[in-house]
Amino acid sequence: MTEEVILLDFWASMYGMRTRIALAEKRVKYHYREEDLWNKSSLLLQMNPVHKKIPVLIHNGKPLCESLFQLEYIDETWPEENPLLPSDPYKRARAKFWADIIDKKVNVAGRRIWTTKGEEKEEASKELIEILKTLESELGDKDYFGEETFGYVDIALIGFYSWFGVYDKYGNINIESECPKLIAWAKRCLQRESVAKALPESEKITTFISERRKKLELE
Amino acid sequence: MTEEVILLDFWASMYGMRTRIALAEKRVKYHYREEDLWNKSSLLLQMNPVHKKIPVLIHNGKPLCESLFQLEYIDETWPEENPLLPSDPYKRARAKFWADIIDKKVNVAGRRIWTTKGEEKEEASKELIEILKTLESELGDKDYFGEETFGYVDIALIGFYSWFGVYDKYGNINIESECPKLIAWAKRCLQRESVAKALPESEKITTFISERRKKLELE
Repeated sequence: MTEEVILLDFWASMYGMRTRIALAEKRVKYHYREEDLWNKSSLLLQMNPVHKKIPVLIHNGKPLCESLFQLEYIDETWPEENPLLPSDPYKRARAKFWADIIDKKVNVAGRRIWTTKGEEKEEASKELIEILKTLESELGDKDYFGEETFGYVDIALIGFYSWFGVYDKYGNINIESECPKLIAWAKRCLQRESVAKALPESEKITTFISERRKKLELE
Repeated sequence: MTEEVILLDFWASMYGMRTRIALAEKRVKYHYREEDLWNKSSLLLQMNPVHKKIPVLIHNGKPLCESLFQLEYIDETWPEENPLLPSDPYKRARAKFWADIIDKKVNVAGRRIWTTKGEEKEEASKELIEILKTLESELGDKDYFGEETFGYVDIALIGFYSWFGVYDKYGNINIESECPKLIAWAKRCLQRESVAKALPESEKITTFISERRKKLELE
């Protein structure tokens, strides 16, 4: 059967990066379609009518929404190469727990850093450092969150690394000095071709956010 | 091996109800420990230090947090009886997508109905009806969300049914007349012993929320 895999995505999305990395880890060939988030395509609106958000993975015409569910689907559909989730049910549940924390806490605090001012921004900066330290402590002395091999939680978090420059700049923080082990982990992940190819340059994201802030009249 | 299963829970929690139903569907015996949410036990704080929330499922001393991950874990650990998730990867991803929508949208709108006033409450009431209609349309003419058999999405949503009285009362809405097929689905689910035993009486929740609102000086 000929597989048709399409990814509706946006270059700076840390969620899209997850799916790009997972597809690369599994050596799945796909068509990448860049979306204009301020003028969404009719295909995106049709494939994800509830959230209207990227990334959407379309496999043989059928849409899959939400990056973490895409990772699980990719892992179950192409199980041969590089398993992403552990096979043990308890370890699987723990991996999902940490990825969920990344979605609920890292993303929320990170976004508030560059979209708010004053006290709210300061609070968001503190929250971000706190949750990154919690994640660093979960990583401990392991090479990857998935113990010895790069996997689901690593993929869930690594895209945010390309946004750390934005968080440092607007939050007046220095993530590298606060969380040195996490930065060492990120650099380790970046040695993988799947990650290096999926993550844009940090400076490109900083420039993009500076322009967004001007449009939102935040600077 | 002797299994030790403990559930830290709170009677009115629609999340706790999920786990109670799943354990009953699998005929797993467990110790139920009611938590005082305004004076949490040291066991809860120790088992779920990041969120400090119920339900927590403790299986042979190891904690599992977040109800939807508990359902998956229960399904994977006790696979013999009543499968909760479909075996097909695409159907699994879709089931997770709908359960995630229930968490992101039904819960948020429902909570805003009884914790806010004026325009915000009106907006929340509209949002709740809208998302319930979307779910009703996803259900279509099927008996259950999991097609012919009661499963993961049904379990994710049914606990909210015991809160519909609260939403009707404080949101000035009538869910039954807006979403008759969804109510018929809920009554079908309630015929299962696992559901009937896990859901408290609607009046008990309405009384509890009326008392909460007095304490929060909302009435």
